[in-house]
Amino acid sequence: MFDQITVLGPGLLGASILKAAHKRGLAKRIVAWAHRKERVKQCEEQPWCSAAYASIQEALDGADMVILATPVDNIIDLLRSIGPHLKEGAIVTDAGSTKTLICNQGESSFPPSAHFVGSHPMAGSEKSGLENADETLFEGRTCLVTPIPQANDIATERVVRFWESLGMNVTCISPEAHDQAVANISHLPQILASSLCAYLGSTDSHWHRFSGGGLRDTSRIASSPPDLWKEIILQNRSFILRAIEGMERELHTVKSAILDNDASHLARVLAQGKAYRDKLEKFYQHKKEAQSNTEENP
Amino acid sequence: MFDQITVLGPGLLGASILKAAHKRGLAKRIVAWAHRKERVKQCEEQPWCSAAYASIQEALDGADMVILATPVDNIIDLLRSIGPHLKEGAIVTDAGSTKTLICNQGESSFPPSAHFVGSHPMAGSEKSGLENADETLFEGRTCLVTPIPQANDIATERVVRFWESLGMNVTCISPEAHDQAVANISHLPQILASSLCAYLGSTDSHWHRFSGGGLRDTSRIASSPPDLWKEIILQNRSFILRAIEGMERELHTVKSAILDNDASHLARVLAQGKAYRDKLEKFYQHKKEAQSNTEENP
Repeated sequence: MFDQITVLGPGLLGASILKAAHKRGLAKRIVAWAHRKERVKQCEEQPWCSAAYASIQEALDGADMVILATPVDNIIDLLRSIGPHLKEGAIVTDAGSTKTLICNQGESSFPPSAHFVGSHPMAGSEKSGLENADETLFEGRTCLVTPIPQANDIATERVVRFWESLGMNVTCISPEAHDQAVANISHLPQILASSLCAYLGSTDSHWHRFSGGGLRDTSRIASSPPDLWKEIILQNRSFILRAIEGMERELHTVKSAILDNDASHLARVLAQGKAYRDKLEKFYQHKKEAQSNTEENP
Repeated sequence: MFDQITVLGPGLLGASILKAAHKRGLAKRIVAWAHRKERVKQCEEQPWCSAAYASIQEALDGADMVILATPVDNIIDLLRSIGPHLKEGAIVTDAGSTKTLICNQGESSFPPSAHFVGSHPMAGSEKSGLENADETLFEGRTCLVTPIPQANDIATERVVRFWESLGMNVTCISPEAHDQAVANISHLPQILASSLCAYLGSTDSHWHRFSGGGLRDTSRIASSPPDLWKEIILQNRSFILRAIEGMERELHTVKSAILDNDASHLARVLAQGKAYRDKLEKFYQHKKEAQSNTEENP
């Protein structure tokens, strides 16, 4: 149990962390810091909130566990400035979707008496904001914890245990391995969905009336917030550029097969895509079954 | 009411058409033609089937309404060969996902006494095969009917009424306008999903373990049958090539913005994508509400 958990940035994710930590009794005090006064007031009214502040120094005072749950560019800014306010032995983690820059910043900005270990809890919702906070948001979901080689082992262990105690399945990987993986399986799909919709927006005045489930699903995540995503993409630019280039090569192969009227070549790429997607579906089914078994036998 | 409706190709779509036509009493006789003997036998056992044949000539004998519901390359082959077997005044349509080549073939192969008017009933299912035939498959869905300029007006009218009597919302457009629209809102998303999965399949050995709802939805249609899709894509190659090029330009814009670290340019493309997707979501919601109102007040 911690003496005090402080979350900086009580949006959907941050407030859900606090609510879940309160419910599971993980800390004596549950504290939030928000930039805007109205948000501070809103936090103070929540039953799960011991105290809320607009001053970072006050919010960090006495905290032995600190979670940065702001957009990724603000995480970098906060890491630069919070060092002097951290309690001796404080453990700090974050909930950002990129890890290399954040973990490097944590390493270079902190005093030796405090420990930063990055995290990426892979949980979210179509909804946003504190008012949609959900203490079950993390149950059965994956959390990637990304210690750098020189990370303090005890701090890493406590961060892992923290997410596990919210019901998450935790895997430790390096910040770089994390960023390479998500560049491909998360950031590239986001860029494709957004680019597809930007392209269609420039051409389609009424075609969408004939569209069905294919376009609906393929494009769904294009409705994600542009301001959050531009920062995520720029923080992970080298891996993302490589992923886009890989995708461009694949699309070029398809285009050549169509230009050459090469049915067997085209069928081969479609079959490779299907093989991967079928494997993915099996993985999702397996995960779903594992989760429902856990719920039945907790 | 028709004397006899004959479907060539009683797969999921073809058998669903026959089942729905039977249920709604649209014809005195409901006839199927299938290439394989087992499939003919399976049809004969269905309560909605008056007769089934492995001989096209026998299946077309007496039919005043004929629907070609095979894969698109077979539709072209059938249009080339069925002309001599059609009854005087017979109306022929199809259920293929491409229209220009099919409608041209219908026009050039038929005797003056029979009429071809192309259709694209936009209904489908994850499932396939006669055993999953569903008489409600068409209710509330869009059907595009694509008469060529010289089409017989009465034949067009009867084809439109036929799909309407299965519960579909019918729009008439030219075969070329159809193919341009679906190249962009259906075939391009299919190619992107397949290419994304083919690319990921070439790189990812374990990254998918960290994937979430974004990849799942963006890639879902990559599991579609490669053999059906390669024919659809090749039949619509010119419009699809233009759509791929439009997408490549958009992706290149995103790549340049990332390379230049140009946050505002990147945010602009993401915002354009979001604007289109939000408009699309409103359209889907509106359609859903309209459909549930129709169900309440039929």
